[in-house]
Amino acid sequence: MTLTEVDTPALLLDLDKLERNLDKMAALARERGVLLRPHAKTHKTPLIARMQLERGALGICCAKLGEAEVMAGEGIEDILITTEIVGHRKIERLISLARKAKVAVVVDDAAAAGEISAACIRAGITLPCFVDVNVGQNRTGVAPGEPAAGLAAAIASEPGLTFAGLQGYEGHLQHIRHVGERKAASARAMQALIETAQRIERRGLRVERLTTAGTGTASYVDAAGYPLEIQPGSYAMMDAQYGAVEGVDFEHALTVLTTVISVHADRVVVDAGLKACSTDAGMPKPVGLEASYLPGGDEHGLLSGPAKFFVGMQLELIPGHCDTTINLHDEYVVRRGGEVIGHWPIAARGRVR
Amino acid sequence: MTLTEVDTPALLLDLDKLERNLDKMAALARERGVLLRPHAKTHKTPLIARMQLERGALGICCAKLGEAEVMAGEGIEDILITTEIVGHRKIERLISLARKAKVAVVVDDAAAAGEISAACIRAGITLPCFVDVNVGQNRTGVAPGEPAAGLAAAIASEPGLTFAGLQGYEGHLQHIRHVGERKAASARAMQALIETAQRIERRGLRVERLTTAGTGTASYVDAAGYPLEIQPGSYAMMDAQYGAVEGVDFEHALTVLTTVISVHADRVVVDAGLKACSTDAGMPKPVGLEASYLPGGDEHGLLSGPAKFFVGMQLELIPGHCDTTINLHDEYVVRRGGEVIGHWPIAARGRVR
Repeated sequence: MTLTEVDTPALLLDLDKLERNLDKMAALARERGVLLRPHAKTHKTPLIARMQLERGALGICCAKLGEAEVMAGEGIEDILITTEIVGHRKIERLISLARKAKVAVVVDDAAAAGEISAACIRAGITLPCFVDVNVGQNRTGVAPGEPAAGLAAAIASEPGLTFAGLQGYEGHLQHIRHVGERKAASARAMQALIETAQRIERRGLRVERLTTAGTGTASYVDAAGYPLEIQPGSYAMMDAQYGAVEGVDFEHALTVLTTVISVHADRVVVDAGLKACSTDAGMPKPVGLEASYLPGGDEHGLLSGPAKFFVGMQLELIPGHCDTTINLHDEYVVRRGGEVIGHWPIAARGRVR
Repeated sequence: MTLTEVDTPALLLDLDKLERNLDKMAALARERGVLLRPHAKTHKTPLIARMQLERGALGICCAKLGEAEVMAGEGIEDILITTEIVGHRKIERLISLARKAKVAVVVDDAAAAGEISAACIRAGITLPCFVDVNVGQNRTGVAPGEPAAGLAAAIASEPGLTFAGLQGYEGHLQHIRHVGERKAASARAMQALIETAQRIERRGLRVERLTTAGTGTASYVDAAGYPLEIQPGSYAMMDAQYGAVEGVDFEHALTVLTTVISVHADRVVVDAGLKACSTDAGMPKPVGLEASYLPGGDEHGLLSGPAKFFVGMQLELIPGHCDTTINLHDEYVVRRGGEVIGHWPIAARGRVR
């Protein structure tokens, strides 16, 4: 089957480009002596997680327990859940998951850590637990320094948990366009994490690992001798948002194939709207055409520009944000060049719980 | 099961409110003597389409063939596909669909109409076909007046098609806040449609029906004696965007249940982000709390305001845009008051083709 026979809108995945992206990040991690734990919230697909592990990743990250359940169900064995797990229903699911795979968690609250520990004790297991530190993203995470050190001590005193280290994800820095600015900001965020680690070690606790970084900072982060794990996700796919960031040199493996369904003197309409291509982090970009895209509702997109269009014409859009676009689709149409070689289910799509 | 036992994020559907919304629109259509064909792109659920039909709707609208296939598969028998169908793969699917259900289509291009007609002839069927008229939304649709009349004549001359009337959806007017302005703009859009219908009738063709209107204009549209069909969708659910529109008096039947997972002096984080609640048409609104919501990435939301929050606290968010939020979820958690009475699959979720 060739691309021109694919019904649209379709989420296309260029396997050659994906493989080169995965190889490149794996080589970068090896060369820099950091551990690679790619974030699976981007691709949501055990098949791709497996490709990352085969290239040397030590495990994967998941944002939600539901994603981790899908991954563990397909045999992925080492998973860090990067978001706080709260409430007895989720903790029960976490305990079940921990019987199938090696799972680590993050916490930013001592009481929440206590609840997870209590459940672990009842189940007769212990779970590795990272302190989630706010290094400036101002989302989850306890403040660096004494608050984080106090929480580390609290975790270490919980019999159901093992203190595993610090997570300090600097999500707010990933898309700083200028390399120098991004490096400097990333170094400051890392410094807060390192000082927190040193403070914890002065208390006699060992900080076994720091886990942080995304596609925008993975090449720069330096943990001053602490074992460092990086968590990039988008590099596998590359979206238009990262395409605008200097020094993030991966290939656009992901596109949305769309068809022109309506052409008029003043406008051109394609069949990919908000339900096929997310716009939360900027507009999708047409490939190889002088044209720009705006959503025209749930199921329509509007193209403008000097390019020549006709009804039935197919074109590709590079998503503005790969994670939220992938989450709209049930499958990747996998290609090598112009040839379709498979359909891969996006098994963890919609797993928000 | 009570609401407090529901794992989050969850898409909650208040069945009492849904039923009252459906009753109200059905009564409005009866009283005004217009035909009601609710748009199923909002709810994407055959069970809800069935509830609309039981209340007197003559059929449903679908935005995409894939939605219509799901609806027909569950026995929904009268479907208008409101978006242009282009390309031989989709036309083949349309022909298969037409063997299972009564299907009507829209076109804005004579060549595309010819292709559908040819396929109908080969299949030995005829399909009702509306001219899609651009009444100002500037998306799909041929210009009113002579261009639309010419296309009507072209359709009437196609042996595989029956000219069924005009579609003139005024999507650009649905969210005009002030009632008077919205009424006046809607009357102008309708006037373009009526004059086009008159022009077509002067050519000796009968215009059997005009189809148009959404939740914002369904109460006002007047077709000056032409049989009129209205296409509202959002009224069933009501979102925050329509909540800000004067005179759109339906109840918020749809919310996203979310849990507070992280509380700090300067910020509060919930477990519903961009993958649980869309933000394309404005932010979700917390119910019954002095607080406002901003997305904090794919899986986090940030709350601010004077309300008191604690880790583990559950709260509801009214989606900014119901259609794109529903499309993120696999099921409705259906409630009456605080009691969960069922889980309804969103069977046409993700059907973008």
